[in-house]
Amino acid sequence: MEKKLKEYKNDDEMGLFVLIKSAEKRVTKTGKDFIAMTFQDRSGEIRGNYWDAKEEDITNFKAGRVIYLNGKRETYKSAPQVKIMAMRLADDTEPNDPTLYTEKAPVSISDLREEVSATLFEITNADWNRIVRALLKKYDTQFFAYPAAKTNHHAFEGGLAYHTVSILRLAKSVVKQYPQVDASLLYAGALLHDLGKTIELSGPISTTYTVAGNLLGHITLIDEEIVKTAQELKIDTNSENMLLLRHMIISHHGLKEYGSPVEPHMLEAVVLHALDDLDAQIQMVSGALKDTEPGEFSERIFGMDGRNFFRPTTDK
Amino acid sequence: MEKKLKEYKNDDEMGLFVLIKSAEKRVTKTGKDFIAMTFQDRSGEIRGNYWDAKEEDITNFKAGRVIYLNGKRETYKSAPQVKIMAMRLADDTEPNDPTLYTEKAPVSISDLREEVSATLFEITNADWNRIVRALLKKYDTQFFAYPAAKTNHHAFEGGLAYHTVSILRLAKSVVKQYPQVDASLLYAGALLHDLGKTIELSGPISTTYTVAGNLLGHITLIDEEIVKTAQELKIDTNSENMLLLRHMIISHHGLKEYGSPVEPHMLEAVVLHALDDLDAQIQMVSGALKDTEPGEFSERIFGMDGRNFFRPTTDK
Amino acid sequence: MEKKLKEYKNDDEMGLFVLIKSAEKRVTKTGKDFIAMTFQDRSGEIRGNYWDAKEEDITNFKAGRVIYLNGKRETYKSAPQVKIMAMRLADDTEPNDPTLYTEKAPVSISDLREEVSATLFEITNADWNRIVRALLKKYDTQFFAYPAAKTNHHAFEGGLAYHTVSILRLAKSVVKQYPQVDASLLYAGALLHDLGKTIELSGPISTTYTVAGNLLGHITLIDEEIVKTAQELKIDTNSENMLLLRHMIISHHGLKEYGSPVEPHMLEAVVLHALDDLDAQIQMVSGALKDTEPGEFSERIFGMDGRNFFRPTTDK
Amino acid sequence: MEKKLKEYKNDDEMGLFVLIKSAEKRVTKTGKDFIAMTFQDRSGEIRGNYWDAKEEDITNFKAGRVIYLNGKRETYKSAPQVKIMAMRLADDTEPNDPTLYTEKAPVSISDLREEVSATLFEITNADWNRIVRALLKKYDTQFFAYPAAKTNHHAFEGGLAYHTVSILRLAKSVVKQYPQVDASLLYAGALLHDLGKTIELSGPISTTYTVAGNLLGHITLIDEEIVKTAQELKIDTNSENMLLLRHMIISHHGLKEYGSPVEPHMLEAVVLHALDDLDAQIQMVSGALKDTEPGEFSERIFGMDGRNFFRPTTDK
Amino acid sequence: MEKKLKEYKNDDEMGLFVLIKSAEKRVTKTGKDFIAMTFQDRSGEIRGNYWDAKEEDITNFKAGRVIYLNGKRETYKSAPQVKIMAMRLADDTEPNDPTLYTEKAPVSISDLREEVSATLFEITNADWNRIVRALLKKYDTQFFAYPAAKTNHHAFEGGLAYHTVSILRLAKSVVKQYPQVDASLLYAGALLHDLGKTIELSGPISTTYTVAGNLLGHITLIDEEIVKTAQELKIDTNSENMLLLRHMIISHHGLKEYGSPVEPHMLEAVVLHALDDLDAQIQMVSGALKDTEPGEFSERIFGMDGRNFFRPTTDK
Amino acid sequence: MEKKLKEYKNDDEMGLFVLIKSAEKRVTKTGKDFIAMTFQDRSGEIRGNYWDAKEEDITNFKAGRVIYLNGKRETYKSAPQVKIMAMRLADDTEPNDPTLYTEKAPVSISDLREEVSATLFEITNADWNRIVRALLKKYDTQFFAYPAAKTNHHAFEGGLAYHTVSILRLAKSVVKQYPQVDASLLYAGALLHDLGKTIELSGPISTTYTVAGNLLGHITLIDEEIVKTAQELKIDTNSENMLLLRHMIISHHGLKEYGSPVEPHMLEAVVLHALDDLDAQIQMVSGALKDTEPGEFSERIFGMDGRNFFRPTTDK
Repeated sequence: MEKKLKEYKNDDEMGLFVLIKSAEKRVTKTGKDFIAMTFQDRSGEIRGNYWDAKEEDITNFKAGRVIYLNGKRETYKSAPQVKIMAMRLADDTEPNDPTLYTEKAPVSISDLREEVSATLFEITNADWNRIVRALLKKYDTQFFAYPAAKTNHHAFEGGLAYHTVSILRLAKSVVKQYPQVDASLLYAGALLHDLGKTIELSGPISTTYTVAGNLLGHITLIDEEIVKTAQELKIDTNSENMLLLRHMIISHHGLKEYGSPVEPHMLEAVVLHALDDLDAQIQMVSGALKDTEPGEFSERIFGMDGRNFFRPTTDK
Repeated sequence: MEKKLKEYKNDDEMGLFVLIKSAEKRVTKTGKDFIAMTFQDRSGEIRGNYWDAKEEDITNFKAGRVIYLNGKRETYKSAPQVKIMAMRLADDTEPNDPTLYTEKAPVSISDLREEVSATLFEITNADWNRIVRALLKKYDTQFFAYPAAKTNHHAFEGGLAYHTVSILRLAKSVVKQYPQVDASLLYAGALLHDLGKTIELSGPISTTYTVAGNLLGHITLIDEEIVKTAQELKIDTNSENMLLLRHMIISHHGLKEYGSPVEPHMLEAVVLHALDDLDAQIQMVSGALKDTEPGEFSERIFGMDGRNFFRPTTDK
Repeated sequence: MEKKLKEYKNDDEMGLFVLIKSAEKRVTKTGKDFIAMTFQDRSGEIRGNYWDAKEEDITNFKAGRVIYLNGKRETYKSAPQVKIMAMRLADDTEPNDPTLYTEKAPVSISDLREEVSATLFEITNADWNRIVRALLKKYDTQFFAYPAAKTNHHAFEGGLAYHTVSILRLAKSVVKQYPQVDASLLYAGALLHDLGKTIELSGPISTTYTVAGNLLGHITLIDEEIVKTAQELKIDTNSENMLLLRHMIISHHGLKEYGSPVEPHMLEAVVLHALDDLDAQIQMVSGALKDTEPGEFSERIFGMDGRNFFRPTTDK
Repeated sequence: MEKKLKEYKNDDEMGLFVLIKSAEKRVTKTGKDFIAMTFQDRSGEIRGNYWDAKEEDITNFKAGRVIYLNGKRETYKSAPQVKIMAMRLADDTEPNDPTLYTEKAPVSISDLREEVSATLFEITNADWNRIVRALLKKYDTQFFAYPAAKTNHHAFEGGLAYHTVSILRLAKSVVKQYPQVDASLLYAGALLHDLGKTIELSGPISTTYTVAGNLLGHITLIDEEIVKTAQELKIDTNSENMLLLRHMIISHHGLKEYGSPVEPHMLEAVVLHALDDLDAQIQMVSGALKDTEPGEFSERIFGMDGRNFFRPTTDK
Repeated sequence: MEKKLKEYKNDDEMGLFVLIKSAEKRVTKTGKDFIAMTFQDRSGEIRGNYWDAKEEDITNFKAGRVIYLNGKRETYKSAPQVKIMAMRLADDTEPNDPTLYTEKAPVSISDLREEVSATLFEITNADWNRIVRALLKKYDTQFFAYPAAKTNHHAFEGGLAYHTVSILRLAKSVVKQYPQVDASLLYAGALLHDLGKTIELSGPISTTYTVAGNLLGHITLIDEEIVKTAQELKIDTNSENMLLLRHMIISHHGLKEYGSPVEPHMLEAVVLHALDDLDAQIQMVSGALKDTEPGEFSERIFGMDGRNFFRPTTDK
Repeated sequence: MEKKLKEYKNDDEMGLFVLIKSAEKRVTKTGKDFIAMTFQDRSGEIRGNYWDAKEEDITNFKAGRVIYLNGKRETYKSAPQVKIMAMRLADDTEPNDPTLYTEKAPVSISDLREEVSATLFEITNADWNRIVRALLKKYDTQFFAYPAAKTNHHAFEGGLAYHTVSILRLAKSVVKQYPQVDASLLYAGALLHDLGKTIELSGPISTTYTVAGNLLGHITLIDEEIVKTAQELKIDTNSENMLLLRHMIISHHGLKEYGSPVEPHMLEAVVLHALDDLDAQIQMVSGALKDTEPGEFSERIFGMDGRNFFRPTTDK
């Protein structure tokens, strides 16, 4: 079987299909055009420069295209890089569907969908149940397609739903262990907490922030959606039920400096923030360790205060 | 004319009508009932204990009642205090209207109302104009009656409208001086920025935080009102006009640590935050200096990092 | 049945057995001796002053004694207080065992013990298993008797074991959900992480810090114990196994400012810190909410940045 | 008319007179000399490399010279750059006066001078008036020529006077609105607050910090000047008048961490700091927005916590 | 010999001459006058209330008077207190000189004076030598009488000179060990660094901050003195010599947040700040340990981040 | 005599023996191999690229080899660089011992050894004396060979012993001046405080952090060594003597955020931290000033908050 990008070692000759993740036309200091590119498949990414690019190359080799790449794996400034020998577009007889090359949630979307549906039955409070159902229905496509963040954690297709389900699973353990926690409120909060990202971010691929995302942020955006949904469903937005649900969502960053206009003032809000953090951290560290040799320290992780992490020698 | 509370000096015999601001039944260490009271008139406040209180006294001398107070001014733990000699309820032939004794905005409400109305004509953007008009109409009574804050600055009846108008006046100078500032946006933002406090706070007297105020905060509460109003007026909540107006409001605390879920990302938002701060600071410092003798330093002001302020000897 | 301390309302006549939690001889401003006391039973605590104390009273009414208390419940500075009418030592025909009056872990010690034992079988790494067994054996009595903290969270008899078991339960959910987490290492770390508190704190009753606790702290103290135990068991203290286990323990406060000399640099260390925090926070908030009426906010909690927490009106 | 630097688009052929702002001889990795240059005119700046530089080129093409530049506009690392085709010194028949190419205060120096003079009559306190007059006279040339800062805000010729006058205008609005503010003190403080920068900075062009600027800073330097001037004018440096004026100046950074040895302890000092900040922020944001397309976000601004700012699509 | 204040134990009858350190007339809750007093001798201080004070007592028993005190030592809120039995003014046949009762620098003033004089010969730079001599001459009386701080460290008569000499001694060791340190500059800086406190503080007894102290602070005040002195001595204030000396003084708090308008940018400034800190810390900790029993921890020290300090059991 | 590396000026032809400090094979953007090298001798370091490297060159020119270098001194990105003309390995008739080219402590190792030995006699407490002797004996070789830090201060061979002795010298001055300081404890703490770095760091040359260093840190590592040594010497690890010594070591970073699990709670610990800091700072600043021209500011120093330092024009 064809080798994946990450399976090549230094100085290996490479020959494989990859997706162009980004392609930027640049000029050398001495005035010649080249394309600075990033390639990806499901094993990871690599950068490379396509020298002496012609107009036609610039038109063909754009982000989103699948190509067959010939080259040699090298190291530049201690990061892997491919020295490009040749490159051509994949044709229709070849695996040219971009989604074959992008990272996906490690669980199937249909499994995630089922787990979310099942959880809805455990939200026994009628107001919360109706609000959550209405919003998940409205944003169904995006919820199961968007990443959970532009970078850092769960930055892959389906990442938002996957992150949400991971929190739900942790939440169920917490509910079982601490009966004083209101399960309906915690699950409703978990399901909606990051849904505003479907408005804050531009989409599942080449994700950027929208103007609304920059000016209002996903916390204000989802609160708006909850308010509107309540109005449509004729639920009083100032009933205690609504105050509690909205408090869960707007306080879930845990601290004002992280963008929550109020900090958690309910037990369930404390738990939601902690589980959100825990899942994101596990995902970030696990992701970094996957690219680390046993007995070595990983790259420094920006979202973890720039710390690096150790992979034990016994971790095969 | 009758002397005001603040005009009495130590050891003076006092005899005057005052409002009971607070009255709390307590027990001495040795088991006797007394009432710990605060009295006020427009000159200020003083504390005093009503010893050996009978059931009937506890029923009569409640917060909100006007009484005639006989006593002697003393100092206890370096704060003024009244040693109560006698106390009786004011009757209907006497000045027993509580509002005669509470602090008011230093400008008449009708003047404030007029200045606000005049400003509306300068909001030339139709969407913003309609939103602001609708919300000022909906919250008219509260806007001209509420304080601007529970403590710290403009904590008096009408303080919210007075603070808003002060910012508008500063804003007009800024607009004249810096033509690049969008006047409509700045005025609309100024008029709405603290309107959520009418929901966050319980009312103009004995002000406390509501549950909605504690769980959502006035920034989220007014954003909700803007969203709802836009829907009623058939204005798209995600149009650029609405994003800009909402950004003005939610960013006006200037920093995330002060409760803004996003920080200012527009010139007008930077200006609104600066003017809000400036007016509040002038009000806090001026208030403290009023109770300070020339040549002395004021009490330390909590909202100004605990700093104290100097009143020059030449300030008569 | 006899009413508990917390079941009395203001102005109730009280008559019940209680434990003297603390008793301090003091002098009134005018020179008379009295005893400032705190009483407790399993429902909570109350303060009271014993006036005009004689030498003999001072000798009798010491911390740790059970007494029969007659008095009246009052409020002093908004805290409940008992006005003591009479007081006598409980005799041997009465319930005079102090442990009948102190708070206990909400689970039986034997259940905790069993759960800990069962977990040991899941630590499949031989070095970690032997170290953990040896230390739990050495500190068995203290581990199941000490509180988890002097104040704040799990500050009751058996609190340390209870807190540890709570973390273990959460840890098992995490291990099930995230197979990349090394269960042996996480469980071993969880079991030992706070064991140093048995050296840092003076004991289960009237808990204070020892000199070793003040000068070295529980992190350094348990690291010392691990090193010594490894030597006794002939395990190389600088083997990777030992580095990993010790890293788990010394990094578990999560940040240097919280007293960890190094911050977490392993996935399992990240998880242990998060679960430790989560359980402590749930315990603090739940404890405060128990003393809060539905629809009200709790007292501010020191260990939660001074925030107060809302108990919903629907929480019966 | 000849196009300005900022009017060229990517790939345009360029031909125009520009000032060399900086020119640094460097060596390529492979050992050849080139000159790394920055060019400017009143529309902005651009960088470019002059390859294969001869001795003579290095002598001719120095900072401060006006040249005629032929080249092509390109983008290098997402910043605009000129690929230099040819370059020659402007001769005396051509516009070769460097000051034609440097940014200037947007108001004429004579207007600024007039506005400052007029304000002096409003400083009615004799001591402050004399001190301010004497110092403005002593530093007249520099005051109207220096920038207000090395980078960040008002970093152009005449920027210091322009920034000062902007603050004065805001100050006059404040004085009108808040009669409790002492106008003389506020104006005197505003006029002197940054005058020390004429000693701290090296001059209006190629501005750097002087040794005195680095070792003492402009706050200490202007305080020294005030002290000396008072002595020359036989004004007691420890009179209240002098303490107040000096306090205004040394506290104007608002916080110790920003270099004020004492923080504001007077109402006027609070106002001066706020207006100084406001004008600097408006200037920084407006400057960045000028280079931003409608509907886009600006570059991140270092002096505004690295935030970027939105230019509305309706801003033509 | 007569016992000192600190030599009495609880319940001892006391009879001794003491100085009244402070005396404040107060009123009991029930309206009776009393005097809240603090007494001191060289062993320490104690508080006590003089009940039922007559007009005549209030006139006689003022701060600064020496009295003969009869009373009983007690404990109130865990602090020692004297229950006053009787009190009378000391007459001229008795030790009624206040300075017999105030704490003094542990070295004689003449020794300090001699050590300072000797050091002057080691300042070989003529400018620095002349400035230091002139200023020490001008403030001679205050320099050898003032405390080094209002509270915290060296808060006793002569404390300023004593602290200065302590730093000089440390400085000499540093100079000997690190020949790259400029001895003249370091000694000159050390001698002047806190001299501004003689202007900032009101005097050696009942020390408070002056208005100049509050509005300008001792760093700006001594810089002013250096500038004036340089002018009198015809030394150019902007010569490098003067920049260096002034930099030493204004940077000696080490960080802007501690009130230095610039941070140390010279080796000698780094050393001066470190030695200033070291001597102050040793003094604070030693002072607290003097009142601590062996084997115990001291009170928490405000100036040391609220930490407490251990006195070993072997410290006799 | 042959010129040293730092004695060459720009454009000088260079010809001298140097040590290869680091050599990393890289690839140019266009795919050719080169070696990025750093050369050093006792005067300092310089970088240079060896272009078109053959397999054989890569094998020969490794870190640790002495070579004869021909080249030309240039400047690249404002840092000096050598343009390599030729390079050959030094042979046995030439000065090819690497230790001739590495920086050394400015005092001979035997002098340092003697000074340490002499100090041991001043540690009169038997427990501390035995522990210190045992550990210095065990780590004798490393103690006198290792640097004191990977970068920043005393980063040269023998730096650890040199830094330790510098602190001891300062400590002796402190002990003489402040008799309340326990000399034995201070000297014992000083001698051991950084000894854990011999385990934390990989060695005197090409120093990196070990896995134990990263996961446990030098504070925990030396505490472990003290505990083990006490056990071997049959000293009770929980005796007060041991608590005090261990407290000295683990608190010596002064603040938790700097990695001390407890902060100093003893006078001697306060002193040790201050002297450690002082010596490191003097070393960092002096080192930077050595490379600075008189009248100029040094490079910014990372370990000194990024500040730069002034070298007076009179400093020859």
